[in-house]
Amino acid sequence: MPTPINIALIGSKFMGRAHSNAWMSVNKFFDLPRDAMMHTVCAKNAKQTSAFAKKWGWFNSTTNFKDIINNGEIDLVDIGTPNHVHADQAISALEASKHVACEKPLAGTLDEARKMRDAARKAKRKGIQTFVWFNYRRCPAVAFAHQLVQKGKLGKIYHVRAKYLQDWGGPDTPLSWRFDSKLAGSGAHGDLNAHIIDMARFITGDEIVEVSGAVSETFIKQREIITTKKSARKRFGKSTVDDCVLFLTKFKSGAVGSFEATRLATGNQNANQIEINGEKGAIKFDFERMNELQWWDNTLDSSLRGWSRIMCTNAGDHPYIDAYWPPAHLIGYEHGFTSQAADIIRMLAGKKPIVPMPDFEDAYQTQRILHAALISAKKRQAVRMSEVK
Amino acid sequence: MPTPINIALIGSKFMGRAHSNAWMSVNKFFDLPRDAMMHTVCAKNAKQTSAFAKKWGWFNSTTNFKDIINNGEIDLVDIGTPNHVHADQAISALEASKHVACEKPLAGTLDEARKMRDAARKAKRKGIQTFVWFNYRRCPAVAFAHQLVQKGKLGKIYHVRAKYLQDWGGPDTPLSWRFDSKLAGSGAHGDLNAHIIDMARFITGDEIVEVSGAVSETFIKQREIITTKKSARKRFGKSTVDDCVLFLTKFKSGAVGSFEATRLATGNQNANQIEINGEKGAIKFDFERMNELQWWDNTLDSSLRGWSRIMCTNAGDHPYIDAYWPPAHLIGYEHGFTSQAADIIRMLAGKKPIVPMPDFEDAYQTQRILHAALISAKKRQAVRMSEVK
Amino acid sequence: MPTPINIALIGSKFMGRAHSNAWMSVNKFFDLPRDAMMHTVCAKNAKQTSAFAKKWGWFNSTTNFKDIINNGEIDLVDIGTPNHVHADQAISALEASKHVACEKPLAGTLDEARKMRDAARKAKRKGIQTFVWFNYRRCPAVAFAHQLVQKGKLGKIYHVRAKYLQDWGGPDTPLSWRFDSKLAGSGAHGDLNAHIIDMARFITGDEIVEVSGAVSETFIKQREIITTKKSARKRFGKSTVDDCVLFLTKFKSGAVGSFEATRLATGNQNANQIEINGEKGAIKFDFERMNELQWWDNTLDSSLRGWSRIMCTNAGDHPYIDAYWPPAHLIGYEHGFTSQAADIIRMLAGKKPIVPMPDFEDAYQTQRILHAALISAKKRQAVRMSEVK
Amino acid sequence: MPTPINIALIGSKFMGRAHSNAWMSVNKFFDLPRDAMMHTVCAKNAKQTSAFAKKWGWFNSTTNFKDIINNGEIDLVDIGTPNHVHADQAISALEASKHVACEKPLAGTLDEARKMRDAARKAKRKGIQTFVWFNYRRCPAVAFAHQLVQKGKLGKIYHVRAKYLQDWGGPDTPLSWRFDSKLAGSGAHGDLNAHIIDMARFITGDEIVEVSGAVSETFIKQREIITTKKSARKRFGKSTVDDCVLFLTKFKSGAVGSFEATRLATGNQNANQIEINGEKGAIKFDFERMNELQWWDNTLDSSLRGWSRIMCTNAGDHPYIDAYWPPAHLIGYEHGFTSQAADIIRMLAGKKPIVPMPDFEDAYQTQRILHAALISAKKRQAVRMSEVK
Repeated sequence: MPTPINIALIGSKFMGRAHSNAWMSVNKFFDLPRDAMMHTVCAKNAKQTSAFAKKWGWFNSTTNFKDIINNGEIDLVDIGTPNHVHADQAISALEASKHVACEKPLAGTLDEARKMRDAARKAKRKGIQTFVWFNYRRCPAVAFAHQLVQKGKLGKIYHVRAKYLQDWGGPDTPLSWRFDSKLAGSGAHGDLNAHIIDMARFITGDEIVEVSGAVSETFIKQREIITTKKSARKRFGKSTVDDCVLFLTKFKSGAVGSFEATRLATGNQNANQIEINGEKGAIKFDFERMNELQWWDNTLDSSLRGWSRIMCTNAGDHPYIDAYWPPAHLIGYEHGFTSQAADIIRMLAGKKPIVPMPDFEDAYQTQRILHAALISAKKRQAVRMSEVK
Repeated sequence: MPTPINIALIGSKFMGRAHSNAWMSVNKFFDLPRDAMMHTVCAKNAKQTSAFAKKWGWFNSTTNFKDIINNGEIDLVDIGTPNHVHADQAISALEASKHVACEKPLAGTLDEARKMRDAARKAKRKGIQTFVWFNYRRCPAVAFAHQLVQKGKLGKIYHVRAKYLQDWGGPDTPLSWRFDSKLAGSGAHGDLNAHIIDMARFITGDEIVEVSGAVSETFIKQREIITTKKSARKRFGKSTVDDCVLFLTKFKSGAVGSFEATRLATGNQNANQIEINGEKGAIKFDFERMNELQWWDNTLDSSLRGWSRIMCTNAGDHPYIDAYWPPAHLIGYEHGFTSQAADIIRMLAGKKPIVPMPDFEDAYQTQRILHAALISAKKRQAVRMSEVK
Repeated sequence: MPTPINIALIGSKFMGRAHSNAWMSVNKFFDLPRDAMMHTVCAKNAKQTSAFAKKWGWFNSTTNFKDIINNGEIDLVDIGTPNHVHADQAISALEASKHVACEKPLAGTLDEARKMRDAARKAKRKGIQTFVWFNYRRCPAVAFAHQLVQKGKLGKIYHVRAKYLQDWGGPDTPLSWRFDSKLAGSGAHGDLNAHIIDMARFITGDEIVEVSGAVSETFIKQREIITTKKSARKRFGKSTVDDCVLFLTKFKSGAVGSFEATRLATGNQNANQIEINGEKGAIKFDFERMNELQWWDNTLDSSLRGWSRIMCTNAGDHPYIDAYWPPAHLIGYEHGFTSQAADIIRMLAGKKPIVPMPDFEDAYQTQRILHAALISAKKRQAVRMSEVK
Repeated sequence: MPTPINIALIGSKFMGRAHSNAWMSVNKFFDLPRDAMMHTVCAKNAKQTSAFAKKWGWFNSTTNFKDIINNGEIDLVDIGTPNHVHADQAISALEASKHVACEKPLAGTLDEARKMRDAARKAKRKGIQTFVWFNYRRCPAVAFAHQLVQKGKLGKIYHVRAKYLQDWGGPDTPLSWRFDSKLAGSGAHGDLNAHIIDMARFITGDEIVEVSGAVSETFIKQREIITTKKSARKRFGKSTVDDCVLFLTKFKSGAVGSFEATRLATGNQNANQIEINGEKGAIKFDFERMNELQWWDNTLDSSLRGWSRIMCTNAGDHPYIDAYWPPAHLIGYEHGFTSQAADIIRMLAGKKPIVPMPDFEDAYQTQRILHAALISAKKRQAVRMSEVK
């Protein structure tokens, strides 16, 4: 009988819930070589963390991160905290010889990301593994797109068009830590561009060699400060992060790309979209219809070519679906986390994941692109990736 | 501290998994007055049932239905078995003063359904409640459509157009119990028309008064018998259920309706579709895009009218969503069960459900329509509902 | 040099414009063996007809139908008048040995339609041809669907689902001749069901053998009478036509069908929709996106199957398109008439049309189905087509 | 009785047909103060031009451009020739005091465009008018989007996302003049970006102040030379134009934009797409569904917001539609030209067009953006529009 994997989670907000649900569900839906054991959850407020642990089934709770690092029972540290603390937490855990699964983006800055990569390299020699929660890779439609490219179904790729459009950042949204560059690092850029850079790299298997023309804009420069005090006058504070960042790219293969992340694309709530056009075929994806992949087969008889809406919900045909429900009995956002949890367990049992898993090394490459875009936006010039450490 | 609800589940196949997941998840996602306690699961094969219990977190397992009926700790019996055993199981449980949640359709025949309704009426006087798993009612888009009608946003309704199209029943699908009328009762009719009759009644709040022109067809009359024995010759057996049933209806309000269920609608995997056209507005829904409701507001300026794709994923705006994820972070098929489980718990704690819950009385009305369609198909005539007991 | 075809048009309203545009354009877009000569237009009001002739390029105008019948120069009489006068006009023209192109439906009643068919049979022996303007057959997507079925790409057909949904007939629409059964014959039934019955027969090449369960409803029983007199009180009159007619069918091949025509399907302006599911493939069409055919190829690898949106706009690939514009430079409603005009010219020059052309014989079969639906609606029973003369 | 407008057309290929159809149809569909008289068509080959004139109804044909310039009867010269001859032809015509309607882009180079603008300015003082065939402005959905912005329905604009994607330029497409920079000026850039720059400026009423990061790529560097000679060996020649050009922009209002034109976007045949997100609303348009405008009203109750598919086909509600057919009886590509012809006639009769008409002055601004993108692509830097003459 295999030993279970003892997991400690840091964070109890949005990502805390998503990760807890994944660890709770993963052995129900998937047949796996080892079990996930929900050992300890760690967050700031003792009472709330204890209630969270009870609700989601964590055996222990703590407010002290050291309790996790120093606990010899813990196998895997799962980091679901804000970006600026990833580096400290991940490096401490790696140095304590624990596997680490870290939320994306890898870090708040390229410097921190590099330190994390270096720590991961060192730990890897001791058999310690790292994972980054780029959860969209395990959306079945996205994973299937990756497989289509791998099989050569798109042929030579000409275009990558990636956008992550949200619209919750309008002028009525009050000031919060998300609009403070010291805490959040960046706005839409780190939050959303990180996802689509990873997706583009994952699906194409290609690397960006140049970033150009980046435009970074803060449309809403002042936002209301919400306080509990009743006051006659509204008070406003400054937003110090981007509302949107756009940039263009060239890929190693010769393909060209465009990227855009924004929180002010009215009408788009979670439109994580990508289109890739190749010589033999093309794909389109929109997370707002996450169970579907649009596929164009350019090798069919020309009278019958069209954008084909594939429901990526067939067990056997589409990745991860055999764990869930019958055809067109849709899955949702959370299943990306559950499927990633399954692959993490497989890898910790010495098996291969269904599709490639991003480790710190891989996520560091994505962080370099984010950084290059910031340089391009500032200098108003193209940036060769070879110039970015 | 409120007492938990001790639940016993019968069945460990498709519905067994869906219900187990719902009971496991419901108190994580929802804040509820009582907790679901996964007390006992009951199914045929002892070894498999024990493994199922371990996997999904049921405390006990049994192969003897009487163990449940006789166990005074059990509060709620959850029936996820084939249609032809619903009546026996439900009536026994009700007579033992247990609440019952039964899979749809209520029963395999109208006679059985009537007996179940009578038992439920009797039990109700003792405070015992019944529930039927018409899970699509709690798809947020469907529940929201119900609310729009309730608020008068559609005005007088003219048309109801309901279809449940699947395509897994082609000539290559081998013979199974699903094609045996003795075990399955019917084919697409009981399986799929039951859902859309319930949905039409739920959304409109209206009742069907006439069924006409029903067409029932078995396209594939012989199906291959799959055996483990190796044989030189393929063997075929007779399918004794319908592959599709279509019928037309008149509603009490004067609206007209059309219904169709089929397993041979090539290209449609789980297309549970409904369109309702009213004087002031119209709605369209397709389960293959279950997070979306198409809405037409006929009171807008005529230059701006159009089918509007509402993502029914806003906490506060759309039913049940506050329990799950941020806007356009989609939910899936299983969440209908989780949300229904939440409403069952609310009702067992004396609260009201978010949208109306079908009990045996209500599900019996749906069964009457199913029955009327069979009469119409046989007699080639219209059938007034007043003629159907 | 081939002699031109001298054409006389009767009617100068909606269809008068559509036909005039077709005859004006046909030799510009198509290379044809003969030229259309716009000889004479005939309508009721002398002044308006003369202005119409000048505007659209008809050489002569008249208000006397006999002028056309008696004019030896006229080769083809094109009838664009209301249904109840089709029979008189068409039979007179045929008896005068003129080819006739008649608007759909063939006639206001089955009796008239039969007389027209008989006259056409007699004229045919003298080499006189008849044509019916079921213009949607020559929508490239519809013609292409016909070709796919002919090539066996759908295999055995199981389902035909045809709807023609409009929404202009709401309670605010005033009384007009269209709501007077004496002038209009019927409401949505003759106007819209005629089109989709023809389309279903055309695409499948199959014939209906039974009609059942027909529901005919007049939702709006009283409509306002609009007069030029100023009056303190609104006056209302009775609508004596159907607002909608639905019915179900069986086909000779064993396929089952559903048909619906309505003017009160709020949100649908011209939704002439058909879906056909076969063993090997399926098609969907909606005139509101008339340049597109949805195609499902059930013979593809199962992982790649999906509804494929074919833009039916490729010269060479899709019927009639070589006459018009480059790929995805859309065509519109009027092009169906122009393409039909081209086929009429081809046939009058002894050539074959691109896809089959409905003559009076063919349109009579469609009229029989319309009639059977009326009987079924009245008797509340199924009607075998063999019972309908 | 008003005098007709005598028109001379130069060109008899794709645009020659489109313009001829427009002049033939315009007075049939529209009620206008003056008539279009199809006086003379001019093209290279005498025999073909004569046949073209006969087919489309031009009274005269010539191969000598001077015949038009020197003919005092001609009021309007309509230029449908390749870009590199626009300047010569337009300036000659203006100097001969003829109104000029020129195909887009205004010219092959910015220098030529400036000379044309200067000539137009001079002619304007004499009452001579200029027009540029940016035909997509008069697609009803696009014109309606312009009106929505004008009425303030989008509020402050944040994002403009414009793409013109085609896919006919794959590796199998042989070498032609279109791939020769000397004859074509550019590839996708002048052909397609010209359209979407004009559309973005037209709909928003805003001006671009900075262009950055432009990427210009020739994916297919060698193309086959097709000759009539039979040869054992395939021969290849060099393509000297771009296959795609992408760039990012800032607008005067503070909005940011992205533009992309390509001939290798597999799966997109004529996807002229634009999305604009504002504070109060958003629009999306795709020419492949040119009768539809996607509209998001951000001022509706949040539970009812969604992308609304407006069929821009209602007379009274949507521009130009009163000239054509009933609701959802679609119009096509050619109607943009017919509607523009109607506005040209209105303007030549001293009336206002339905929506603003681009003259040479306006088209010159679009040409400046095209030029700035080329500079940015070459220098790998951002270009301020104030730096571009």
